[in-house]
Amino acid sequence: MSDYNTSIPRLKEIYQNQLFKDVLPFWMTYSMDTDHGGYFTSLDRDGQVFDTDKFTWLQCRQIWMFARLFNSVRPAKKWLDIALHGSEFMEKHGRDAEGNWYFALNQKGQPLTQPYNIFSDCFAAMAFGQLAKATGEDRHHQIAQVTFLNILKRQDNPKGEYNKAYPGTRPLKSFALPMILCNLVLELEDILDPEQVESTIREGIHQVMDVFYQPDLHNGVILENVTPDGRFSDTYDGRLLNPGHVLEAMWFIMDLAVRTDDQSLIDKAVEISLNTLELGWDKEHGGIFYFMDVQGHPTQQLEWDQKLWWVHLEALVATLKGFELTGNTKMWDWFLKLHEYVQRRFPDPKYGEWYGYLNRQGEVLLPLKGGKWKGCFHVPRGLYQIRSTLDRIPVVE
Amino acid sequence: MSDYNTSIPRLKEIYQNQLFKDVLPFWMTYSMDTDHGGYFTSLDRDGQVFDTDKFTWLQCRQIWMFARLFNSVRPAKKWLDIALHGSEFMEKHGRDAEGNWYFALNQKGQPLTQPYNIFSDCFAAMAFGQLAKATGEDRHHQIAQVTFLNILKRQDNPKGEYNKAYPGTRPLKSFALPMILCNLVLELEDILDPEQVESTIREGIHQVMDVFYQPDLHNGVILENVTPDGRFSDTYDGRLLNPGHVLEAMWFIMDLAVRTDDQSLIDKAVEISLNTLELGWDKEHGGIFYFMDVQGHPTQQLEWDQKLWWVHLEALVATLKGFELTGNTKMWDWFLKLHEYVQRRFPDPKYGEWYGYLNRQGEVLLPLKGGKWKGCFHVPRGLYQIRSTLDRIPVVE
Repeated sequence: MSDYNTSIPRLKEIYQNQLFKDVLPFWMTYSMDTDHGGYFTSLDRDGQVFDTDKFTWLQCRQIWMFARLFNSVRPAKKWLDIALHGSEFMEKHGRDAEGNWYFALNQKGQPLTQPYNIFSDCFAAMAFGQLAKATGEDRHHQIAQVTFLNILKRQDNPKGEYNKAYPGTRPLKSFALPMILCNLVLELEDILDPEQVESTIREGIHQVMDVFYQPDLHNGVILENVTPDGRFSDTYDGRLLNPGHVLEAMWFIMDLAVRTDDQSLIDKAVEISLNTLELGWDKEHGGIFYFMDVQGHPTQQLEWDQKLWWVHLEALVATLKGFELTGNTKMWDWFLKLHEYVQRRFPDPKYGEWYGYLNRQGEVLLPLKGGKWKGCFHVPRGLYQIRSTLDRIPVVE
Repeated sequence: MSDYNTSIPRLKEIYQNQLFKDVLPFWMTYSMDTDHGGYFTSLDRDGQVFDTDKFTWLQCRQIWMFARLFNSVRPAKKWLDIALHGSEFMEKHGRDAEGNWYFALNQKGQPLTQPYNIFSDCFAAMAFGQLAKATGEDRHHQIAQVTFLNILKRQDNPKGEYNKAYPGTRPLKSFALPMILCNLVLELEDILDPEQVESTIREGIHQVMDVFYQPDLHNGVILENVTPDGRFSDTYDGRLLNPGHVLEAMWFIMDLAVRTDDQSLIDKAVEISLNTLELGWDKEHGGIFYFMDVQGHPTQQLEWDQKLWWVHLEALVATLKGFELTGNTKMWDWFLKLHEYVQRRFPDPKYGEWYGYLNRQGEVLLPLKGGKWKGCFHVPRGLYQIRSTLDRIPVVE
């Protein structure tokens, strides 16, 4: 184990500078659509806009990010202005008549893609919940609340009429929604009634740690899809592992466990994180695989071996929080190993913001800084979480 | 230009052996589901079944392939038996009450995925049309005919209720369907009425060569998606190029042009093929990219730089047919260049059948021989087309 006493001050400086000097300025400079409102997210290496479509996930995540900075770092007017620049656009254009959030809009805000994707609603609830804390506006509060209740209503058939699965033959449930609810419920704690918060947390922890977690496979893994009664399904979807997803979920669980002061839940999340890293780490080229098959069969995802920015940021956060909360030095060692891998490949000090997509070898696969799925979210959120966690680790002089 | 006189006999031997000794035996040995009927297509490097789901595209393509061998190579009972083994399964399980073909079935034939994908119907029509020629059975003939008419009926909104695009904001039409109809109409020539054949051919050629072909972009490219009036759309979908698709379409067009004895159409298809190869060839690592952006922006397809088996087989067929039909030595040179690239990387003489997915560097990315999208189709069809075309090129002793 490296000596964290000596490295923590240096690490703090690195992550602090990247957040405030490399990453946030990139989005503040290049993403604002001053003609039609909202944000551009399809940005080339140097910030040039190469596509003007607006994706609800990314619009809402950027609203959330700037509102969160305003609420947690300092109440800077410029940050709130940026959040409001996005929220006004989304409030006006983002929803259908039933309050479901479209997946994509064009530059002017006209809907492009129907609300088939419930995660649009999750990120909208998160954005307006965080914004409500900043503005105190009843309107923002209302949007967050109504959207959250709509998610709960839709959660048993999230794709609704756009679901292409034939009913009944192979019912599988997916990890993504219960996992996101574990994070969302803390975001909306002030807005929801306490009963709702408690029951959502209980159910979220149960789903993640009892239902999707399979102790008998590979020393314990979390599957992306299981049968309705929580069993392994020997099918393409059933065999799927997404290590980045699991690591992200594990720090959500740690946050919930801190809130309820549940040390054994923290220990379990650390154990699962370590197993996931062991399984997901590419022993040949380094980095964490995007997708794997739990039985080692070929995945249907052709991009399985790519190294994605968000996977590695979530891994950094999970390992550092795990170390903070348990002192388990294996987590610290993994954090440092990830840090070395990541810092050499993802950041772009020349133009700011990080690359998103590396090939298996760790070379840049797509030079974009933002696109249809990458926006102002995982990098700044991850840097912020790392910086804040480093602040909480006591350094013995 | 290499001397084709000396290389043609050697090439014939290579492609003949690969078809009959390496590839067909692989599928005949490993793909038959003798318990439930139909074919396994998710096969590991050595032919082991790693998943039992049955995908309509691949079931139908394998029926087609063996019926085609029976009709065109020799009427071997074993080939017809294999085709019937698949057709019986699909006849029984493949369609919904309206005659639309499901996208996926489980091993027993229960539907897994709704008929959202009109290409399932295209490959079904192709399979039963070719089978009808082999069996003379009215039943097979009927299925092909009814399915074809259903495709024409659905072609303006192929995804039907499963279409997630919001109506009206950005209507785009896609190249894949008109392109496949160019091939399908020749497959079904005996079954359709002559008027229908002629009008489908006329419309297919018009769509491919006038509407999707854009003479002003990069010396002429064929786009994957255009506006309803055939213009370029500066959007993710509008900028998309799929060089393999274009090369496959160009040999379909050459086949149609041969039928109508249209030399200028052949010349045009050769010109487009050469431009596509020039644009799509990876100058750094060799091979043809899977996806590109016509303006050089990042694609949304993360697998854009991978080298896929079908792309390279279609390129081999297009270049060889183009050379056969025009004597253009640039096409012969490309054929040889592709041959060198392909033969070194895709075939697996140890277990038979070719690898499907290579990374940009040309290394095996997924060791499977078949999966959700790769079955008994592009490799044997390509080898068969190459062998037959080589037969037609006169060698001067």
